[in-house]
Amino acid sequence: MIAREPPARGDMSPQEFCDAGHRLVDWIADYLSSAERYPVLSRSAPGAVAAALPAAPPAGGTPFDEIFGDFERTIVPGLTHWNSPTFFAYFSISASGPGILADFLSSALNQQAMLWRTSPAATELERVALDWLRQLLGLPASFEGVIYDTASVSTLHALAAAREAALPRVRTDGLLQGGRPARVYASAHAHSSVDKAVILLGLGHRSLVKVPCDTEFRLRPRELAASIEQDLAAGHLPLAVVATAGTTSTTSVDPIADIAAVCERHGLWLHVDAAYGGAAALVPGHEWVLEGAERADSLVVNPHKWLFTPFDLSAFYCRRMDVVRAAFSLVPDYLKTSEPASVRNLMDTGIQLGRRFRALKLWAILRYFGSEGIRARLAEHMRLARLFAAWVDEADEFERLAPVPMSVVCFRWKPAGVSGEAERDRSNAALLERVNATGEVFLSHTVLDGRFVLRLAIGHIRTAEHHVARAWDIVRAEAADLRPA
Amino acid sequence: MIAREPPARGDMSPQEFCDAGHRLVDWIADYLSSAERYPVLSRSAPGAVAAALPAAPPAGGTPFDEIFGDFERTIVPGLTHWNSPTFFAYFSISASGPGILADFLSSALNQQAMLWRTSPAATELERVALDWLRQLLGLPASFEGVIYDTASVSTLHALAAAREAALPRVRTDGLLQGGRPARVYASAHAHSSVDKAVILLGLGHRSLVKVPCDTEFRLRPRELAASIEQDLAAGHLPLAVVATAGTTSTTSVDPIADIAAVCERHGLWLHVDAAYGGAAALVPGHEWVLEGAERADSLVVNPHKWLFTPFDLSAFYCRRMDVVRAAFSLVPDYLKTSEPASVRNLMDTGIQLGRRFRALKLWAILRYFGSEGIRARLAEHMRLARLFAAWVDEADEFERLAPVPMSVVCFRWKPAGVSGEAERDRSNAALLERVNATGEVFLSHTVLDGRFVLRLAIGHIRTAEHHVARAWDIVRAEAADLRPA
Repeated sequence: MIAREPPARGDMSPQEFCDAGHRLVDWIADYLSSAERYPVLSRSAPGAVAAALPAAPPAGGTPFDEIFGDFERTIVPGLTHWNSPTFFAYFSISASGPGILADFLSSALNQQAMLWRTSPAATELERVALDWLRQLLGLPASFEGVIYDTASVSTLHALAAAREAALPRVRTDGLLQGGRPARVYASAHAHSSVDKAVILLGLGHRSLVKVPCDTEFRLRPRELAASIEQDLAAGHLPLAVVATAGTTSTTSVDPIADIAAVCERHGLWLHVDAAYGGAAALVPGHEWVLEGAERADSLVVNPHKWLFTPFDLSAFYCRRMDVVRAAFSLVPDYLKTSEPASVRNLMDTGIQLGRRFRALKLWAILRYFGSEGIRARLAEHMRLARLFAAWVDEADEFERLAPVPMSVVCFRWKPAGVSGEAERDRSNAALLERVNATGEVFLSHTVLDGRFVLRLAIGHIRTAEHHVARAWDIVRAEAADLRPA
Repeated sequence: MIAREPPARGDMSPQEFCDAGHRLVDWIADYLSSAERYPVLSRSAPGAVAAALPAAPPAGGTPFDEIFGDFERTIVPGLTHWNSPTFFAYFSISASGPGILADFLSSALNQQAMLWRTSPAATELERVALDWLRQLLGLPASFEGVIYDTASVSTLHALAAAREAALPRVRTDGLLQGGRPARVYASAHAHSSVDKAVILLGLGHRSLVKVPCDTEFRLRPRELAASIEQDLAAGHLPLAVVATAGTTSTTSVDPIADIAAVCERHGLWLHVDAAYGGAAALVPGHEWVLEGAERADSLVVNPHKWLFTPFDLSAFYCRRMDVVRAAFSLVPDYLKTSEPASVRNLMDTGIQLGRRFRALKLWAILRYFGSEGIRARLAEHMRLARLFAAWVDEADEFERLAPVPMSVVCFRWKPAGVSGEAERDRSNAALLERVNATGEVFLSHTVLDGRFVLRLAIGHIRTAEHHVARAWDIVRAEAADLRPA
């Protein structure tokens, strides 16, 4: 018995799609070239966006034009403009034109690169684009790549592989049978994704040993070696070390080669978190950033951070991808295929089965700019950061709190008449709030050796010297206004 | 000392972006309305796409037009057309026009919805759009939502929360101190993401108990209860049950209310995997699909499966989001903010720190089609599936192997003169290969009770009756050609 129901209308018509699409292209082109006209940090009050939207879903349909009107009226004022050249907070990222356009194609094609056969193009372009990036990073061909969404997920896979390598029965039996308590090592400045991965993997947060840093916020290899030896003596099971090439607070680079030597001595998995800093290694004279990484077991670099790629795209490289496969591969009947064994099914190397066609945007960006174009832009960002650092160094009432190996400057205000760390911290927090309230620029902060520090990160593809100069003018002007009488 | 380096050129110009963008809009509109002209399953030979691309990255830049030409020449032939109305494999999904356009905006805006302040709009629109969808699913307001990328990640968070709830010290101390071996229960037809989550969480694959199903591939609650009691008696620690609303092979729906009763009796976390089937509950007369889900602790439904949303967008709902936060929240200094406590920072409920602005496409789709428009399309897919099932039922040489509660039909060929299960399996595998080789349609298979079964899944927004009729014609014609002499 077949029920009779009215036929559905299908999708938006080609004409409607074209009309709306052309309008969006013009809007986006205009947005990209003039994002500075919006307050960088949204001025929306908590709850304002939600309050402007109906509480219940609409029953009837709405023409796309009207939806777009509501987008402009309701959503845009609630945006913090990550794609503005005056966004200097956290890590400054960019969705470049070619990346946005390629991502538009990915959305339309809706590929699922879980099996080779479900998208030969996405599967093979992923291999090619990652191999290009590997060459640019200066890593040997023994590193096989796979794309995940975020560095959090890349690092999770690295530590899952380390767990698998050290405890081959963990997949079947779990950690309860593991015997000795595991240990993972990273510097006190490693990213919170390392903490989260250790927790998720069931190792327990206290299995993560935060190794002390030197005065430039780099992990001390001797302290690492001492920690490992102490843990071995105590009957613990050291699994892995995470070295950071470009820490979140100060873009410090751990001494990877020295750390690799320690790992080799003890047979530990070495993962390099170069999510931000990996890009720097593309710049001539900055190859040192990944020196020693060729001895690592795995490495993550995020093209969505400093390689002009729209979020999300995290590139994970591994010299022992067979261990990742041993940890994750699991093929249900309905996904079994008959391709030759040479064919790589990317679902075998990840926790996520569904996989968007992310390689397309990376490929488009590497081709559109070319490695020379990318290098020139990265070098320019570094030049701008050094310029800002020089201004800070020359100013009487400001001080720099960390070296500037890449494109982030950590600095703070030290107003005359303000003594005591707590008061200085409050002054800097107040200054940051005023600077961001101008809407012209957005900076963030961090804490170094217990002190509240301002952080200016350069990384947007359209950031030019005048944007950085304007940030410095605003910082000084707001400081002058705030200065104790 | 400031080095002198040539200024970089910045991004693609607005004119270039417009020219390329308008070309893409026209191409995509044409593609969406005529994807049937391509072979659905790619005919690319393994390695062909990679071989057509240079082995090394280009040094100089390439105009976007040229990249697009290479895309058409090299990439398109390697696509399997998930966005074609004759894609009937796995779960048939669609990137609808409004979803693609909204995703284009997301790529351009490049929001990072990790903190409220880094995107008030993305944070609050996520709340609103998920609340709309919750109402459509018929779930009570006690379910709080969050968007992840995939159901694999949603289910991972559900089981991580279950682990946290049962073992409050696991976050700090890990599983080694846990004492009793954990147990997680799901039917033999549950998705492989449950297996992968259990493995990743360090519980060990053998902690996953596959509960037997009834003749319609639904978990048997009595067997579940018996398993739990047996495990308790053996000193194990039951943690969670995963019930499936719409299994991958047959879209069977586990009896959620009965399973909830068992879970309540033993204090176990109940997670409902409605990644595919949740959408069915929107259709009047199909509310039963989620009956009992209001008693679950968590539930996942994937708008990128059967709600016309471009990949990726997985909606996770939880009645105990505080437990998810307890499992995952971790705020480093550089992400601390001063917003009022009422503000929700979405990074607190996930393993991924970076979060794309996915809510925009869900909002645009719910508005463009309206709930009535979505319901009509889903109902039409179900009608088409019942129609195909009726054709199978009426055909002498075909048989159906499972009920059709939603929009997937499991069937097989039983050619006269072929006896024995192994030979039948081979005949059906050969038939599937021939059907897919036509390039006109793409079906997949599964295994039910040890038998190789053909699977036709309807879910594409532009699939019409004539597409389904054509699939049936091809299946019969290819079977006739293959018929033993």
